[in-house]
Amino acid sequence: MTLGVHSEVGRLRKVLVCAPGRAHERLTPSTADELLFDDVLWVQAAQRDHADFVDQLTDRGVEVVDLRDLLTETMQLPQARRWLLERTIVPNRVGLGLVADTLAYLDTVPARELADDLIGGLATTDLPREFRPAYVALAEVSGTPRSEYLLPPLPNMLYTRDTTSWLYGGLTLNPLYWPARREETLLMKAIYTFHPEYADSRVWWGDPELDWGHATLEGGDVMPVGHGVVLLGMGERTSRQAITQLAAVLFEAGAAAQVVVAGMPKLRSAMHLDTVFTFADRDVATVYPAIVDGIHAFSLYPADQPPGIEVVDEGVGTFTDVVARAMGLPSLRVIETGGDAYASERQQWDSGNNAVAVEPGVVFTYDRNTVTNALLREAGIEVIEIRGGELGRGRGGGHCMTCPLIRDPVEQ
Amino acid sequence: MTLGVHSEVGRLRKVLVCAPGRAHERLTPSTADELLFDDVLWVQAAQRDHADFVDQLTDRGVEVVDLRDLLTETMQLPQARRWLLERTIVPNRVGLGLVADTLAYLDTVPARELADDLIGGLATTDLPREFRPAYVALAEVSGTPRSEYLLPPLPNMLYTRDTTSWLYGGLTLNPLYWPARREETLLMKAIYTFHPEYADSRVWWGDPELDWGHATLEGGDVMPVGHGVVLLGMGERTSRQAITQLAAVLFEAGAAAQVVVAGMPKLRSAMHLDTVFTFADRDVATVYPAIVDGIHAFSLYPADQPPGIEVVDEGVGTFTDVVARAMGLPSLRVIETGGDAYASERQQWDSGNNAVAVEPGVVFTYDRNTVTNALLREAGIEVIEIRGGELGRGRGGGHCMTCPLIRDPVEQ
Amino acid sequence: MTLGVHSEVGRLRKVLVCAPGRAHERLTPSTADELLFDDVLWVQAAQRDHADFVDQLTDRGVEVVDLRDLLTETMQLPQARRWLLERTIVPNRVGLGLVADTLAYLDTVPARELADDLIGGLATTDLPREFRPAYVALAEVSGTPRSEYLLPPLPNMLYTRDTTSWLYGGLTLNPLYWPARREETLLMKAIYTFHPEYADSRVWWGDPELDWGHATLEGGDVMPVGHGVVLLGMGERTSRQAITQLAAVLFEAGAAAQVVVAGMPKLRSAMHLDTVFTFADRDVATVYPAIVDGIHAFSLYPADQPPGIEVVDEGVGTFTDVVARAMGLPSLRVIETGGDAYASERQQWDSGNNAVAVEPGVVFTYDRNTVTNALLREAGIEVIEIRGGELGRGRGGGHCMTCPLIRDPVEQ
Amino acid sequence: MTLGVHSEVGRLRKVLVCAPGRAHERLTPSTADELLFDDVLWVQAAQRDHADFVDQLTDRGVEVVDLRDLLTETMQLPQARRWLLERTIVPNRVGLGLVADTLAYLDTVPARELADDLIGGLATTDLPREFRPAYVALAEVSGTPRSEYLLPPLPNMLYTRDTTSWLYGGLTLNPLYWPARREETLLMKAIYTFHPEYADSRVWWGDPELDWGHATLEGGDVMPVGHGVVLLGMGERTSRQAITQLAAVLFEAGAAAQVVVAGMPKLRSAMHLDTVFTFADRDVATVYPAIVDGIHAFSLYPADQPPGIEVVDEGVGTFTDVVARAMGLPSLRVIETGGDAYASERQQWDSGNNAVAVEPGVVFTYDRNTVTNALLREAGIEVIEIRGGELGRGRGGGHCMTCPLIRDPVEQ
Repeated sequence: MTLGVHSEVGRLRKVLVCAPGRAHERLTPSTADELLFDDVLWVQAAQRDHADFVDQLTDRGVEVVDLRDLLTETMQLPQARRWLLERTIVPNRVGLGLVADTLAYLDTVPARELADDLIGGLATTDLPREFRPAYVALAEVSGTPRSEYLLPPLPNMLYTRDTTSWLYGGLTLNPLYWPARREETLLMKAIYTFHPEYADSRVWWGDPELDWGHATLEGGDVMPVGHGVVLLGMGERTSRQAITQLAAVLFEAGAAAQVVVAGMPKLRSAMHLDTVFTFADRDVATVYPAIVDGIHAFSLYPADQPPGIEVVDEGVGTFTDVVARAMGLPSLRVIETGGDAYASERQQWDSGNNAVAVEPGVVFTYDRNTVTNALLREAGIEVIEIRGGELGRGRGGGHCMTCPLIRDPVEQ
Repeated sequence: MTLGVHSEVGRLRKVLVCAPGRAHERLTPSTADELLFDDVLWVQAAQRDHADFVDQLTDRGVEVVDLRDLLTETMQLPQARRWLLERTIVPNRVGLGLVADTLAYLDTVPARELADDLIGGLATTDLPREFRPAYVALAEVSGTPRSEYLLPPLPNMLYTRDTTSWLYGGLTLNPLYWPARREETLLMKAIYTFHPEYADSRVWWGDPELDWGHATLEGGDVMPVGHGVVLLGMGERTSRQAITQLAAVLFEAGAAAQVVVAGMPKLRSAMHLDTVFTFADRDVATVYPAIVDGIHAFSLYPADQPPGIEVVDEGVGTFTDVVARAMGLPSLRVIETGGDAYASERQQWDSGNNAVAVEPGVVFTYDRNTVTNALLREAGIEVIEIRGGELGRGRGGGHCMTCPLIRDPVEQ
Repeated sequence: MTLGVHSEVGRLRKVLVCAPGRAHERLTPSTADELLFDDVLWVQAAQRDHADFVDQLTDRGVEVVDLRDLLTETMQLPQARRWLLERTIVPNRVGLGLVADTLAYLDTVPARELADDLIGGLATTDLPREFRPAYVALAEVSGTPRSEYLLPPLPNMLYTRDTTSWLYGGLTLNPLYWPARREETLLMKAIYTFHPEYADSRVWWGDPELDWGHATLEGGDVMPVGHGVVLLGMGERTSRQAITQLAAVLFEAGAAAQVVVAGMPKLRSAMHLDTVFTFADRDVATVYPAIVDGIHAFSLYPADQPPGIEVVDEGVGTFTDVVARAMGLPSLRVIETGGDAYASERQQWDSGNNAVAVEPGVVFTYDRNTVTNALLREAGIEVIEIRGGELGRGRGGGHCMTCPLIRDPVEQ
Repeated sequence: MTLGVHSEVGRLRKVLVCAPGRAHERLTPSTADELLFDDVLWVQAAQRDHADFVDQLTDRGVEVVDLRDLLTETMQLPQARRWLLERTIVPNRVGLGLVADTLAYLDTVPARELADDLIGGLATTDLPREFRPAYVALAEVSGTPRSEYLLPPLPNMLYTRDTTSWLYGGLTLNPLYWPARREETLLMKAIYTFHPEYADSRVWWGDPELDWGHATLEGGDVMPVGHGVVLLGMGERTSRQAITQLAAVLFEAGAAAQVVVAGMPKLRSAMHLDTVFTFADRDVATVYPAIVDGIHAFSLYPADQPPGIEVVDEGVGTFTDVVARAMGLPSLRVIETGGDAYASERQQWDSGNNAVAVEPGVVFTYDRNTVTNALLREAGIEVIEIRGGELGRGRGGGHCMTCPLIRDPVEQ
């Protein structure tokens, strides 16, 4: 079967995840903030909860691929390993005096362990004694935990949704907003360049080897809802500079006919569109109204003259209507975050609106959002629960933790 | 006379400054923090105080060049103007839908005004009505002041010291640490590429068109003290990744024989070496002991085998001794920040140790550091005072506001 | 003449100020935040600028009293000195083991120096050797600068407006919002209890020896505009709990017939009503529209049954109209903060709307607000300028720095 | 059996806890910080985990009392109810215009629900329509969630340890440091004043109806280790002003012969002594060395002349030795937080050193601190695990969640 994602709720056939691991074992109270987590997590429990999630996805017929395995397979290819190390173990990252020793050490490391180093981070203190030149003292006096790393820990790879996005028959290699996540995309490029099952994919946009300036895009803001429509959140992390480039590319390739832009406030609680709005069925969305009601929507359409896009200002408060119209639906059935003002704010924060569908009407959400889950069930949605006590501490739920690789279209 | 800086206190012959202007008129309480200022400033007063500073430098025989003039002269060259606009008015910065109109508008703008736009910023609201496409609505909903800019305001160009650094016969084009300052270096590259008086300069290191990763360098951390010695602060803004690359380049070119690295804590109050340590005479330094006593010093020397540097750990608390020894002095005479614990912390914060010498024993400092200035005078230093009430609000003094272009060596 | 304040713009006859001093000499970058200042100030310059302000007030026929003098005179009275020290040098503040020695030391100190200690702070390190018991080690290990103080520095006394408020023929002893300011009011109570010229004053409300809970009131939110009307800002610092108690007391005493409450957002930039709205003439107000247009206004009137107040909700955006109506004016002439969006935000921040009138149509403002000052002059107001470069760093202008003691009513 | 706590590890016979409830249901992302929580918690899960903890304590023979029950029983006494409401529903807290209606409403509420209101908070929006005067609009415009409360939510009552402390045969009613917790102590005073089983207790120190200034004390810093020795942490929350008063009172009553003060840095991670140091057996302590090694210790002894205490400076790094000596032990066996630098910092943060003993050698800790728990077991300690995923989000473990009421001495 060919890679490609043709809807938000059609049957999910193959998905990329990334189990918690060493990066989280190194997430401490003093580094959590910079690494975008609100608290440390108990890694064994998070791993168990993540494994349960994977099991349940598998039970539902989804093929689940873990990034660590993909990267291991890729690092087993000598040219891929060389390609990636040439781009990561360089003076601008590890420091001039540590390049040779770090490379020498990594030469001794098998592919799986290298994958762990690439995702989980390699601290200067991880270098065995024989690979520690005098220069290492300069690094260790530098102070902040981040600068002591030769390879940075990437705890947010747990949220695979953001790094790459399949949009119908091609994908994007996303330039991520926060420095703590920027290195993620190069790992994905290695896979999509060398791994035999992924190497022939069509890349719409993005290349981690280029500087994208203010053009940042994160997959939590990207939704190919079918019918040639793409929803793109514009907020803290995804910028108009990226949105318009991506729209122009999709239009030019004939891959999309309309992009609906959701202009959101720049808040941590609304960091991505999928933290306030996801689909649960063909025409059902779970929605956090305190944010969604204030979205300023725009529609982008193909245009003949450069730059190839036409911008239509849809105004404030029209987002769900614009989406319904774009998808050819009479309207969206909207399930709001449940409970009173306190409960609603709390559930949204705990990824209450971050559902991921395995097929129309069947979604995964966190167990803790009991009120919102009850409302979804009342609306006829089948809700499968994931334990979110640890996995959610970086503010991501089932939608964030899954990067669909193959998903069917929905017929309406 | 040839450009080149051969000491910290030899006769200063030519210097680059940048008077306050539009970038500061747009510095508001809500943007000051992101733009690295602690408070807004009264721009007319700052301009008057800066002009006085320039007058006094001129009276002392220094040729003072303002960046705005240099950039204007550069923008009068059609190929320079094209080169710079091709690199700044691009989809990744201004957004796909605004490139054509912004370029069209800037074509109507004379060189001096373009220089103002480049330093002072160009907001989307500055675009005249006939150059505002429908797309502009996307930009203006984006929210944060920074994203509304087509060209960002660069208020920190006031501190010209940081962006480029002359080290003996060549210069560096510095990759700056904070995003708010990164765009400064490209303006300098335009000048050093096209301006007839600057175009032939030798560039040791740095190129704003490349991505330098963790290798960041700011001129406040760079001191060519003579005798083939260079002092480099390593702290919040200048990293070991940059320091070692620069050292290797200087060693290879034979431009330096020893680099002394000052490992400092990563604090705003110690953002650069020159905020805690500057020279006032051949063998006299003004020093903030609360930080300098805790510096972890290293010496870098040329080495035969790659990467071409040898690292010697000099330990903590040895910095001034290491510097004296490197410079061939029996010892440094150290003038500490004056007053009790309160006064000393306050004066350092107000750039009390940020002196700039016009010749051995003659320095400029802010008027407000009366206690430290008195101590300098007692030590036989001539102190010329600058009004610092407005100019210092971004935490920089006379040393920060001057980028020496020609300075003589000192004989000892 | 009797103490009493009968308007905001009637002839100002007597006013209380507090020149900058030791408290500001001890304001450092690391304590500024807790002490509510945005930056340190150059104390000598601030003193000079404050003295100029006082001279100009005097030239205009205003009798200016400095708090330091009042407190000195009060501390010359043995029973007043004993009363105040019994309430400040207690185990809950200085620590059990330091009470006796601190009192013994202060017994050796003349009244003027004691006044300095009370306003400027007394650090444990100020205790002479013979008054330092073993216990002092416990205090000095405690760490934060504040806990090392035996008497806290009170740099915000510079803004005498806030601590006490004359409302027609009586005054309030205000419970201030931030811990950094709470000790100010006890000094004022000592004066109003013992100083022969002040001891007979009528106190409407407030007593620093009681715990006022959430009932906090600051004079910057208090304006007796005449005609039996009082304006009270309700925001970050002045609470409804205080407002309603004060209104009930004034109504019961027949001292006011209407209280207009300005419900403001809780922002540092709008910390008091007088940072966004002050009077310049009988019917002229200088106003920061970005905040004032969003004020939610209420009117409070006397009521027969308990609790003695009737609340009328006047809605949002009606404030200036409600004020005009209450004062019997057809409308207020409103002078807005001048300039574009950048300039307007900057000038408000720099106390641009914080004018203080010496008589109808004659106000003091900071020199730096050139645009707003020009607009005031165009409207026929005489503007006398104060240097604000240092004095304004705690975010207060002429209105904040003056506590009127005698001001005439205005006839209309 | 008589109330009294005679050691840290003797048999625990009776203990006070407070199950999670409405206060946590109202803890939202926007209020968590002010309420001292790092994240919101899933209340049902927290309740289940807390109930398990209580069950296991009961299984071990401990009588567990829940504060909600105690307060309900107290509120069933008319004079107690009146006493407490007279002190909480007052103009300084709820506002003048809401006193009568709030009291009228609470008259309709049964004792258990009143206890819920007192612990869980009563928002203005909780008032039924018939008890909402016009005045309520003033409250609801005020903005911050806290000011909308008539009775504040007290989520930190979960950590009953801090509010009152039994020290041998008497207790303290602690003045707590943060405003978010200050109201807790009055509830405890109501119980200790009126509840028949508690009313005769001897109170050493503290009274929530008085203003204690800088004298703050929290039970997490208080350890009656036996042998007439009391350990008191001095840091962010417990001040020398409180410590010395308490020591003097205990010495005078003959209740203690030595107080060991642990001078700690003011850090959230070391908020109380029991977050870095607790006992697991007669001579075994679990310790976070990164903080404990830097403790500056003092011993306080009775003295004849006022103020009745002698201070001995024990220096830095001596704490565990001083404690052992005071307790008559040759030395303490110290179990350090387990794992590498990352794991150790993480486990301390997750209350890894916050063990509570039910008898010598048997402790409760959180399940997530697997490494530290393993080390305790290796040292022969029986470790009973509590689920900490939700309960620990306010940074407290088993020690914090328990306020011992009866605990035996240990014989050595």
